[in-house]
Amino acid sequence: MNDTHESESMPHVVILGGGFAGLAVAQQLKRTDVRITLVDRRNFHLFQPLLYQVATGELSPANIASPLRAILERNKNVEVLLSEIERLDLENRRVYLSDAELSFDYLVVATGSTHHYFGNEHWRQFAPGLKTVEDATEIRAKILEAFEAAELEDDPNVINALLTFVIVGGGPTGCELAGALAEVAHRTLKHEFRKIDPAQAKVMLVEPSAAPLHFYPSPLPTKAAEALSGLGVDVVTGYHVTDVDDCSVTLKASHDASTRTIQTRTVIWAAGVKASPLGEQLCQQAELSPARGGRVPVQSDCSIEGNERVFVCGDLAKFDDPEKGDLPGLAPVASQMGRHAAKCIQADLKGKPRKPFRYFDKGSLAVIGRLHAVGSIGRFKLHGFVAWSIWLMIHLMYITRFRNRVLVLVQWGWAFFTRDRSARLITGPSRIHSQTSPSEQARSA
Amino acid sequence: MNDTHESESMPHVVILGGGFAGLAVAQQLKRTDVRITLVDRRNFHLFQPLLYQVATGELSPANIASPLRAILERNKNVEVLLSEIERLDLENRRVYLSDAELSFDYLVVATGSTHHYFGNEHWRQFAPGLKTVEDATEIRAKILEAFEAAELEDDPNVINALLTFVIVGGGPTGCELAGALAEVAHRTLKHEFRKIDPAQAKVMLVEPSAAPLHFYPSPLPTKAAEALSGLGVDVVTGYHVTDVDDCSVTLKASHDASTRTIQTRTVIWAAGVKASPLGEQLCQQAELSPARGGRVPVQSDCSIEGNERVFVCGDLAKFDDPEKGDLPGLAPVASQMGRHAAKCIQADLKGKPRKPFRYFDKGSLAVIGRLHAVGSIGRFKLHGFVAWSIWLMIHLMYITRFRNRVLVLVQWGWAFFTRDRSARLITGPSRIHSQTSPSEQARSA
Repeated sequence: MNDTHESESMPHVVILGGGFAGLAVAQQLKRTDVRITLVDRRNFHLFQPLLYQVATGELSPANIASPLRAILERNKNVEVLLSEIERLDLENRRVYLSDAELSFDYLVVATGSTHHYFGNEHWRQFAPGLKTVEDATEIRAKILEAFEAAELEDDPNVINALLTFVIVGGGPTGCELAGALAEVAHRTLKHEFRKIDPAQAKVMLVEPSAAPLHFYPSPLPTKAAEALSGLGVDVVTGYHVTDVDDCSVTLKASHDASTRTIQTRTVIWAAGVKASPLGEQLCQQAELSPARGGRVPVQSDCSIEGNERVFVCGDLAKFDDPEKGDLPGLAPVASQMGRHAAKCIQADLKGKPRKPFRYFDKGSLAVIGRLHAVGSIGRFKLHGFVAWSIWLMIHLMYITRFRNRVLVLVQWGWAFFTRDRSARLITGPSRIHSQTSPSEQARSA
Repeated sequence: MNDTHESESMPHVVILGGGFAGLAVAQQLKRTDVRITLVDRRNFHLFQPLLYQVATGELSPANIASPLRAILERNKNVEVLLSEIERLDLENRRVYLSDAELSFDYLVVATGSTHHYFGNEHWRQFAPGLKTVEDATEIRAKILEAFEAAELEDDPNVINALLTFVIVGGGPTGCELAGALAEVAHRTLKHEFRKIDPAQAKVMLVEPSAAPLHFYPSPLPTKAAEALSGLGVDVVTGYHVTDVDDCSVTLKASHDASTRTIQTRTVIWAAGVKASPLGEQLCQQAELSPARGGRVPVQSDCSIEGNERVFVCGDLAKFDDPEKGDLPGLAPVASQMGRHAAKCIQADLKGKPRKPFRYFDKGSLAVIGRLHAVGSIGRFKLHGFVAWSIWLMIHLMYITRFRNRVLVLVQWGWAFFTRDRSARLITGPSRIHSQTSPSEQARSA
């Protein structure tokens, strides 16, 4: 590069994480005189809101993942590094990667969140969560393999367990997964098997509170529960999970001590998230006490106390909005925080004061099956077809890169008119042999 | 099922493998009074001729893979089982699967082929071949990771090795891969890196004979070599591989004893295939001596000697056509053999004599980069744009299922006009850490 000397003198902004927050920082700083290094362990930005459609075979991973380098090709001040982050050193302003070291003038940490099993990490092997492309293809394989194993099975109890799918957590992801999974079982696979009837499959959604989407304003939670029931989802409210193993999940009533054990081979975890491990390091070095879920408390400008050149954005941050309270872990929150951190850097460079961050809530929507969504846009509470149309438009609009928009639209159109889902591949290491062992275990159990 | 008794009395046709041959058998027998069981270890049929486009990030796996159950949904006499084949027993007409046992009246074995390292199986870990979806996503990750590691590297020798890609074998797959890989390096990634220049990457195609596609009629091999050179591929003819390790490949001249060692981190194996392991079992039990590459010699009706109810079709079979000699391992050969085996079963059921199989050669084409293909259709030798247009139409026509045809067309159109390839995901277990170790090894070597 010719401009080595010139660029060396420019402030160096290091962004950790290429999700919604990290990408927003880089994009907002496109024409600012800074050198930017964006570090991610993956070479793509993932449009996580549609990940459940990969898990249920409607879309391919590449449809919702865009190469970071392609997105940032024209951002000439951005260098992308594919690496693992090993250690931060806030005092000396350094970041240690698995194969490089960076020094920074500004740091934006936006490494997001991971699944939270609330101290029961051993449940992870039986109840995968949905955060990454690998999670999605693993869940997709698990769901499809359960039907395949049922077709090979003779014992009606084992068949029942194989055709029972339990989704833990009635937030947007849980509701969207449950709706899509009911469609897969009751529509897509309906005529494809010869011995079993996929339409007999049971999809259960377990939620500890009184209704799914309980943080949505009334009457939306009720409407969501009705829509799910209409799709054949068994909505189990007022129960939380007390145990998960390879052939069952145990529930306990939130109000009395009664328990239920459900025989199942497929449990999907949509019950909670916690901050990425980098949060702990950050809190230690900045002498902050982590907020619920290990998140890093940030100040009104999204920087952390005592380190005004270190910003934390997105799911990793705990931001208390004066009006809206603790901000949820949503893509728009992350994008807006990222953009705000970038604006603070721009203000610093111009010698202007930083402004406090304000979240502009455009609303949020969760899709429940075909033609139906539930949520709010501004002050309007919406459910049904209108909500679904708005959801569709917004998601198509926000999908990164035009090509993926076209591909997603073609596949949605196809799935809509034929009720088929073609991205139903079982890939990865063969688990066919392991299909027999749980069934044998169940027999002996 | 109501027709258990009726169907139990019908002849049972067991098909092993859901590739082009196996699928053709099932489809030809759609309206025949037989019970069919199709066994595959994967839940999808793979359109292998386009697998190289998955490996080079143009298409997603689901675009060229169709769920077997969806393809055969309306073939009511077909039952699909997802299982591993463990053992055959020709004498007692039984097939042992990992979780079931089948008895057959007719057996069609069509389990295809796998990579052939000619006794050097340890090369496999350094030089993956391209046969499965997992192979394709692994090769895709390997290629992209080499560029990523080069961007992080300082040592120019290591950068050179990382940006050198060696494809072993100048058949259609090797030529198609080399052309596509040259496009990726010289076009797609051109502006995406800040330190390295992907256009400096070297793509080498190693072929022992005097030209790539040497079994095509003259002047096509020369035309192929010219087209590859035009794309910036370094075509190394007259050399074969004598060693592969994690940082180099050693070549030996076919005519004199001279050797060459190329420093590279990415070797792709397209040099040879051998019959799937089931071929050995079949030959043993039928007392046949396996043909070159472990293939099973079949008779003029595609059945094996002494077992007229056992057919072997596709890549696994060695068929000597009276006019065309040893038939190549191509999709049309497999489809036609499968259809013929099915017709023999139909003839048997009607008490008519079986006819001998004749391969109808519609020709074959290999794509070399943008707008260019080489091959023959009937008696016509074609190269350049016309060949490419025909290739495009034929492949779109033969892709299983309409949805995938639309998706492939959209993505080809996009790639054509923008030179972009969006399915460039590095997925699977993170190999980032292992990127440093070969570079360190190279330094110490």
